[in-house]
Amino acid sequence: MKSKIKESPLFWPAKMKDGVLHVLDETLIPEQMHYVEVKNTKQAVNVIRQMKTRAFGQFLVVLQTFVLELNRKSKTGLLERLKETADALNNSRPTFPFSEVTSIVLGWAEKVEHEKTDTKTYVMKNIEGYLQGIRYRRLERVQKIAELIKDGDSILTHCNVSGELAMAAAICQDQGKEIHFFATETRPYFQGAKLTCWELKRMGAHVTLIADNAVGTVMADGLVNKVIVGSDRSCANGDFANKIGTYQIAVLAQEFDIPFYALTQPSDKVKKGEDIPIEIREAKELLTFQGKKYIQGNVDGYYPGFDVVPHEFVKDTIAINVR
Amino acid sequence: MKSKIKESPLFWPAKMKDGVLHVLDETLIPEQMHYVEVKNTKQAVNVIRQMKTRAFGQFLVVLQTFVLELNRKSKTGLLERLKETADALNNSRPTFPFSEVTSIVLGWAEKVEHEKTDTKTYVMKNIEGYLQGIRYRRLERVQKIAELIKDGDSILTHCNVSGELAMAAAICQDQGKEIHFFATETRPYFQGAKLTCWELKRMGAHVTLIADNAVGTVMADGLVNKVIVGSDRSCANGDFANKIGTYQIAVLAQEFDIPFYALTQPSDKVKKGEDIPIEIREAKELLTFQGKKYIQGNVDGYYPGFDVVPHEFVKDTIAINVR
Repeated sequence: MKSKIKESPLFWPAKMKDGVLHVLDETLIPEQMHYVEVKNTKQAVNVIRQMKTRAFGQFLVVLQTFVLELNRKSKTGLLERLKETADALNNSRPTFPFSEVTSIVLGWAEKVEHEKTDTKTYVMKNIEGYLQGIRYRRLERVQKIAELIKDGDSILTHCNVSGELAMAAAICQDQGKEIHFFATETRPYFQGAKLTCWELKRMGAHVTLIADNAVGTVMADGLVNKVIVGSDRSCANGDFANKIGTYQIAVLAQEFDIPFYALTQPSDKVKKGEDIPIEIREAKELLTFQGKKYIQGNVDGYYPGFDVVPHEFVKDTIAINVR
Repeated sequence: MKSKIKESPLFWPAKMKDGVLHVLDETLIPEQMHYVEVKNTKQAVNVIRQMKTRAFGQFLVVLQTFVLELNRKSKTGLLERLKETADALNNSRPTFPFSEVTSIVLGWAEKVEHEKTDTKTYVMKNIEGYLQGIRYRRLERVQKIAELIKDGDSILTHCNVSGELAMAAAICQDQGKEIHFFATETRPYFQGAKLTCWELKRMGAHVTLIADNAVGTVMADGLVNKVIVGSDRSCANGDFANKIGTYQIAVLAQEFDIPFYALTQPSDKVKKGEDIPIEIREAKELLTFQGKKYIQGNVDGYYPGFDVVPHEFVKDTIAINVR
């Protein structure tokens, strides 16, 4: 069933090379494709906190930071160091479920500590196998997205779906489907304008950028017939958190009878949306544009980084298991 | 009933001084309060087209451009020149009902041409009286907005309401009402971030800026209990056009049971929303920030400057007659 899929740089934005993790700096796209070198936990926390990497990239960084730590020589015991790494990563940003990932790795390490086998090799192999499995399931999901998209579809998306939507678009175009995308800007970081437009065009798809304010209008005017978004964190009951703005798009989709699809990674640990802590980021990020303050004076701002879409608004999900 | 109301610069942003029209350049706020000098029709069309003035400011510029023209010496007949001025203004931007205003002025001029009285004096006096009447009715509306706002209210607004909301806020504060505002950024021109936050704070009100993407979340979290927006063009049936994004805010307000109020100037000539032509502005305005392109490469964009809110979404309007 799986044909060769052209890969987007955002699909797998952190790769280990010669013991150094190369992380795509997504804040520089589309101007340049620059990979930041990450050699230790501290640098990993920095690229996450500065949002140089985001969404699936964070997940990759978290897992591979343990590989960096496993390879590091130190007098401190390995398990202790892995726990420190887990703590540092867990505290980097609140909404992404880092602890769910780090606890898996710690579980492997603790298991072998008891069994007296070679911890380093065992944990490394597990991380490698785990990543391969996720890679395979994500490629499968790309195929499913391509099946969901029909000839003539016009799809609205928000923020950035880390390669999967763009790769599905490429498959659709190969299949001769005529499709179109509307990408929201996604303030305040402009992931839609900078990442989604760039990668969709790069994969040969047609995309039109709109302000986040224009979603209601393009829906009312019948310019889109499907919404497909990713999720940063998804719950057992189908609720999910994603970039701020996703919730209101879901409400608008319902108002205009447009099916709303979410790509999720359901967790057993998070039962429902209310259990997801929402990261409130600094208001100055709203007032700053490309590193420069664009509004002078004191303005109070409120910037929740994510919102939670209740499952009632979701027509269907394409879920993958990341356990 | 009318007490002395503290005036916001945005309430009356174009004033005639010594035969020159001084137009507040709203694109420079909050950095500076600079008034552009407008001496003729061509310069008037420019300040409108470049959006240095907007909303009510445009209306003032249109009317006072005729005063400039009436004062100009020329061999061409006065009526002919006024018609040329009307044509130029009507063609400056599509959504604002310039022709409804210019036709009133031409009506005065044509009337006296037939009656052989002094056209210049007659039309001048009419424009002056007309502006005075509108000023009075707007000040009355400020009082009505202040009555609508209750102690403890948290009000969401979008774009900028040309002084009226900020002035109402000042009245409320004088009356000891504790109130709060949420202002949307209003991409792509940031009128909310630049104008609304600035003038609300200037009038002593508390305001919190949010991304346009956060409207759904602040509503769902119960952080606002009223929406008050202005309108650029309003219809006989209650539909109205306003800055892009207003429509989706109205849909969200309905979803979350938050009363939505619009400040309108109903027209008899425009029966319903579908009759309002929507200005599609250049996509490059989406890709440009403060004069600099922030996204490299070719990105297609769609930028409707306004949208139309169907009257079903409006809890109530505070309307004024501009006939």
